[in-house]
Amino acid sequence: MGLIVQKFGGSSVADADRLRNVARIITETYRRGHQVVAVLSAQGDTTDDLIAKAEEINPHASKREMDMLLSTGEQVSCALCAMAIEAMGYSVVSLTGWQAGVQTNSTYGNARIKRVMTERILSELDKRTIVIVTGFQGLNQQGDVTTLGRGGSDTSAVALAASLHADLCQIYTDVDGVYTADPRLVPEARKLAEITFDEMLELATLGAQVLHNRSVEMAKRYNVNLEVLSSFSGNPGTKVKEVVKGMEQSHISGIAKDKNIARLALVGLEDEPGIAFKVFSLLAKEKINVDIILQSIGREDKKDISFTVTKSDMEAATKILEENQAYIGFDHIDVNPNVAKVSIVGAGMINNPGVAASMFEALYSSGINIHMISTSEIKVSVLVDLADADRAVKVTHDKFYGQINAGGSI
Amino acid sequence: MGLIVQKFGGSSVADADRLRNVARIITETYRRGHQVVAVLSAQGDTTDDLIAKAEEINPHASKREMDMLLSTGEQVSCALCAMAIEAMGYSVVSLTGWQAGVQTNSTYGNARIKRVMTERILSELDKRTIVIVTGFQGLNQQGDVTTLGRGGSDTSAVALAASLHADLCQIYTDVDGVYTADPRLVPEARKLAEITFDEMLELATLGAQVLHNRSVEMAKRYNVNLEVLSSFSGNPGTKVKEVVKGMEQSHISGIAKDKNIARLALVGLEDEPGIAFKVFSLLAKEKINVDIILQSIGREDKKDISFTVTKSDMEAATKILEENQAYIGFDHIDVNPNVAKVSIVGAGMINNPGVAASMFEALYSSGINIHMISTSEIKVSVLVDLADADRAVKVTHDKFYGQINAGGSI
Repeated sequence: MGLIVQKFGGSSVADADRLRNVARIITETYRRGHQVVAVLSAQGDTTDDLIAKAEEINPHASKREMDMLLSTGEQVSCALCAMAIEAMGYSVVSLTGWQAGVQTNSTYGNARIKRVMTERILSELDKRTIVIVTGFQGLNQQGDVTTLGRGGSDTSAVALAASLHADLCQIYTDVDGVYTADPRLVPEARKLAEITFDEMLELATLGAQVLHNRSVEMAKRYNVNLEVLSSFSGNPGTKVKEVVKGMEQSHISGIAKDKNIARLALVGLEDEPGIAFKVFSLLAKEKINVDIILQSIGREDKKDISFTVTKSDMEAATKILEENQAYIGFDHIDVNPNVAKVSIVGAGMINNPGVAASMFEALYSSGINIHMISTSEIKVSVLVDLADADRAVKVTHDKFYGQINAGGSI
Repeated sequence: MGLIVQKFGGSSVADADRLRNVARIITETYRRGHQVVAVLSAQGDTTDDLIAKAEEINPHASKREMDMLLSTGEQVSCALCAMAIEAMGYSVVSLTGWQAGVQTNSTYGNARIKRVMTERILSELDKRTIVIVTGFQGLNQQGDVTTLGRGGSDTSAVALAASLHADLCQIYTDVDGVYTADPRLVPEARKLAEITFDEMLELATLGAQVLHNRSVEMAKRYNVNLEVLSSFSGNPGTKVKEVVKGMEQSHISGIAKDKNIARLALVGLEDEPGIAFKVFSLLAKEKINVDIILQSIGREDKKDISFTVTKSDMEAATKILEENQAYIGFDHIDVNPNVAKVSIVGAGMINNPGVAASMFEALYSSGINIHMISTSEIKVSVLVDLADADRAVKVTHDKFYGQINAGGSI
């Protein structure tokens, strides 16, 4: 008997049959005596369809109105899911983000949850009512609807789980757990039974797309028990925890790929202090997140700075830097959208300095050129040509897991 | 310089081009120095599409969840319209029913507006911002979304106009005013420059479908200046007022038809007091509105009661009466969905007892059978076979307007 938050993504609620399937999962949990709060994304391509509608009207619509528009998607899926549960004879209520008390800041399109006022949800749960909550959205102090950005429904679920002190937060998705690599790309990829928050965080950030990174950060901070599992298979999923048993046994937990990035290079900067500050504070002011940064000495007294941003920020980043060319002082900007980031992640990596070298060796053997390298204690990321990305994942996976399968060691 | 509330129906906002057209009408009004509050319905068939989605999941979904679902339709159209206005360079904000302060009772699916808390709208208008409000919806005391029922956007517009003390409430629709009959059916139908609230009320109730009856009632009660006009033609529309000049000149203002009704007959009731009370209080408890009622002495000591309800209430009405057959005491129920109501309306009718007779004569001459008759001071309604309905409108119109055209008098 406990309180379980279950989150279902867009593909899990895409049509009437899938909604009924979700209703079954929710009511089965409820029948086992648990209180259930389900957090739903919008159905299938709804959000993309709404964005297309908006762009037809105004390609530069305000984010405030975009949020007003997009927040309807989850409202539809939640109401329909509640109807499916009603049809099964259970007491249920669907709540929008604002009804569920999800309060955010005012960064439309990418809002942060400040707190969740849980009174309404708790009063529904007290009545033994199943509660369905719209993911991805909240309300700011002005009483306007905000959205949390892509993948924000995971964050909604974890925030609700944390605020409600839920016993478990299950993230249902279209894969049945966290794999050592994308199974669609690497058929030999294996499902992990457990993974640490930190490893998951690196994988999420790196584009494994199983869990939204903000949700993992939040789960780690509030120590929310997370589980990633499939709404289709019924198989056990992957548990995300603070510490994982036998963590030392394997060196890497997974391989991730992120194609949604672009590389910008400022060429011919003066070699003087404060340049990096100028560049990255300008980008920060525009709320553009920068990932890998590489600073290199160029010819004579000049230097170059290369960095990566998401593809959607590429234009804005280029624009703001070009507008400030005189202020920053550089020759020109070189923009390359045809890159991808491939990363290996593993808590066991800390004590195994050979792990990075093994990855570089695998890529070198396959003739894949590395543009940039970035490392953390539990991660090694490389920037490669977009065209090489899938192959880079494959050969890296072969290097680590292929050898294990063959009975060898790294 | 004034405050103008403009309401645009579903067909006026059906696609991107039409939304831009609406944005033009709104901004032209704004540029003439007015404050503008626009109330929008859902786009085209959105509401019907959402209802179909719900029925696929659960044909007996709760009205609470239906309202949660349907209220998204207006939110989409309002956000898109705001984006169109943003693209034209104006300051604009879209507000949902609850953001606009529309407070209703809890009759989901058919809620009544209790009051409008206008603070948010007024603060936006003070900033010279155009305000777009979702029609058709509000919030009840429990903080749940309600809808006002079909055509409720007209009511939203009038309620906002009344609460904001607007100088004018313009109802934009796909016809350019109120006609003496449905122009699609009767090509000779003429547009009225002015009509009284009472006449409009009868026409709306009778299915002329130009204005929702509740909106006309409210406009009459709060003396809101109404105007019905087309969002397409740009022609002057029809003004709806308390008193119309030259009202005595014509006997009838219009002919209306309502196909959305069904006739129920309770056959073989005991001829004792309280029967009508039993029947109609049962229906009232189910919130089923009854229109024409006919009570007749049948054979021996028995009598029949016939009455009409909307088609959507037919099943529920039959069910509740059948469940109470013993309590009410009747032989059987006869249900006929193949009926229509045709009505003539006109304030001038009061002093012209020949009007009703002229209508009956027209129908008789054309071999159209009358099942039921109902009259008020400014209205005569008859129930005819559904198959005869269009012809009944035509011959009645010919009778009154054809003769006038031919120089005769009624």
